[in-house]
Amino acid sequence: MNAINYQFKLAARPQGSVKASDFHHVTEQLRELQDGEVLIKNLYISLDPAMRGWMSDNKNSYMPPVALGEVMRALAVGEVVESNNPKFAVGDHVSGMLGVQEYAYSDGKAISKVDPKLAPLPLYLSTLGMPGMTAYFGLLEVGQPKEGDTVVISGAAGAVGTIVGQIAKIKGARVVGIAGGADKVRYLTEELGFDAAIDYKSEDVAAALKQHCPDGIDVFFDNVGGEILDAALANLAFGARVVICGAISQYNNTTAIKGPSNYLNLMVKRATLRGVMVSDFYPRAMEAAMVMGGWIMSGKLKSREDIVDGLENFPDTFQKLFTGENNGKLILKVTKA
Amino acid sequence: MNAINYQFKLAARPQGSVKASDFHHVTEQLRELQDGEVLIKNLYISLDPAMRGWMSDNKNSYMPPVALGEVMRALAVGEVVESNNPKFAVGDHVSGMLGVQEYAYSDGKAISKVDPKLAPLPLYLSTLGMPGMTAYFGLLEVGQPKEGDTVVISGAAGAVGTIVGQIAKIKGARVVGIAGGADKVRYLTEELGFDAAIDYKSEDVAAALKQHCPDGIDVFFDNVGGEILDAALANLAFGARVVICGAISQYNNTTAIKGPSNYLNLMVKRATLRGVMVSDFYPRAMEAAMVMGGWIMSGKLKSREDIVDGLENFPDTFQKLFTGENNGKLILKVTKA
Repeated sequence: MNAINYQFKLAARPQGSVKASDFHHVTEQLRELQDGEVLIKNLYISLDPAMRGWMSDNKNSYMPPVALGEVMRALAVGEVVESNNPKFAVGDHVSGMLGVQEYAYSDGKAISKVDPKLAPLPLYLSTLGMPGMTAYFGLLEVGQPKEGDTVVISGAAGAVGTIVGQIAKIKGARVVGIAGGADKVRYLTEELGFDAAIDYKSEDVAAALKQHCPDGIDVFFDNVGGEILDAALANLAFGARVVICGAISQYNNTTAIKGPSNYLNLMVKRATLRGVMVSDFYPRAMEAAMVMGGWIMSGKLKSREDIVDGLENFPDTFQKLFTGENNGKLILKVTKA
Repeated sequence: MNAINYQFKLAARPQGSVKASDFHHVTEQLRELQDGEVLIKNLYISLDPAMRGWMSDNKNSYMPPVALGEVMRALAVGEVVESNNPKFAVGDHVSGMLGVQEYAYSDGKAISKVDPKLAPLPLYLSTLGMPGMTAYFGLLEVGQPKEGDTVVISGAAGAVGTIVGQIAKIKGARVVGIAGGADKVRYLTEELGFDAAIDYKSEDVAAALKQHCPDGIDVFFDNVGGEILDAALANLAFGARVVICGAISQYNNTTAIKGPSNYLNLMVKRATLRGVMVSDFYPRAMEAAMVMGGWIMSGKLKSREDIVDGLENFPDTFQKLFTGENNGKLILKVTKA
């Protein structure tokens, strides 16, 4: 192929919020495929809070940071447009860590086929992708909700939070979401069937949790960290499980992360705090896909994607995750070349 | 009896470090015993970090706070000097929550007999008492060390820490203690057989942990909180267990407790953070007493008590827990009347 590849390469380690100048928006001539390689045209690129961590020089993380000058790492779905690999044909759709760029090369080892006839492609980046599996295994394996438990979710209107809440409802829990703004709160209770939702932008979260969880929180699924984590820790039920999935309120800090002041309440309430790393559950991805596919088809599990057009809008669009402007799973659509 | 009872009653909620003026040192005429009651002459009073929490007006704790004007709550061992209860005879020795006072009344329900012929009375406040059981169950049930694991203990020279380390050694773990000062470090390695000890007053704890735990920390038993907890969280092994027993570095704070900034590393390292509440294990107290009694008799488990004379020295002596001046289990000896 003789086309141009548009790419976003990491130019600087962001200080605080991500700025356009933290990336070089570059073009590169596509090269010949090597043996076993495929060339993929990216169609949808997933924008996830975890990417903020990959931009930082944190050696103590679960993945090495993106190197300066390297294409920004991101999950995406695309279409195979050239193949030197007998396992992938031109026209196949695949998902994988394809990067913030228009075209990606792959040796075929870290990509999976996805079928646009079974589900719209963006769904493979939301409920049927990483956020969905994070929600499924994080809630069921780490949080272990029992029928009648009170499950509270921070970042409840986000890609992971919406799914956690719906699965918790399916499993017979009372579900309380914490989100920012009246629209999101209404969406959670009216569209997704949450029992209650708290607007952290206009309510005192600790007081609202006390009101909505009179018997305490049995499972707290945290995407946010900071003050909201502390408010939840102050309202735990005996034997509670705290699932740490993320801490988006802290990712742009230029000083140390705010640790949870109320962590001693874990001792008082005989509670457990554990993280969820979705990659630990990849060997069970088929199970999650089967079960959640069934829920989606029977209308029990709804997805919402917030799809923004244009690869060139990557830096500004990414920032919406941190201002909370996105509604549902944030995805960048790569305009057809 | 027509004697005087010397008592310390809580006069004010301490702000920061405990001061003598936070207590009223009062005398009270002893009264007649009611039916079923016993009168106990306290002999040894246990001074524990947890008492600092009981002095604060924290409704969210595992025990109600001591009310203003109430005798300060404390574990103690004493001798029955008068009895209206057929289960207890004059001359029996008992332990229980007898308070910071010379004499205590009990209805017999919350005291246990202890035998000074089997072990010296102070041992019933250390290895054979609450600190010993906290160490035994906290390490074995919550920390779950396996042979060859690296176990790190903060507050390692304290009443709980010394026992945790020795039990971990008995169970075949590598043991690293963190304590304050060259004398304590030497005591841990030379007297108690710890594999290494770090002096937090003169060493960079995070760097020393990295050096002494090249494969990371499998079990971290925390009595201290604050910066030391963060240093440990930065050095966890995969699948580590963090046992929260206390946070003595934070108990005198006048501002919020410092939560652990590095808590997201629990997610990265698939680690679990749980507290230990010794009272959960009281139904298994006999088991701990049997096993630890055997270790004491065979010389595998050493105890050290730091016994200070004179009930009247309570406020100043208590403060030694927070400056680290005590060497081993801090106990106040009540001079015979």
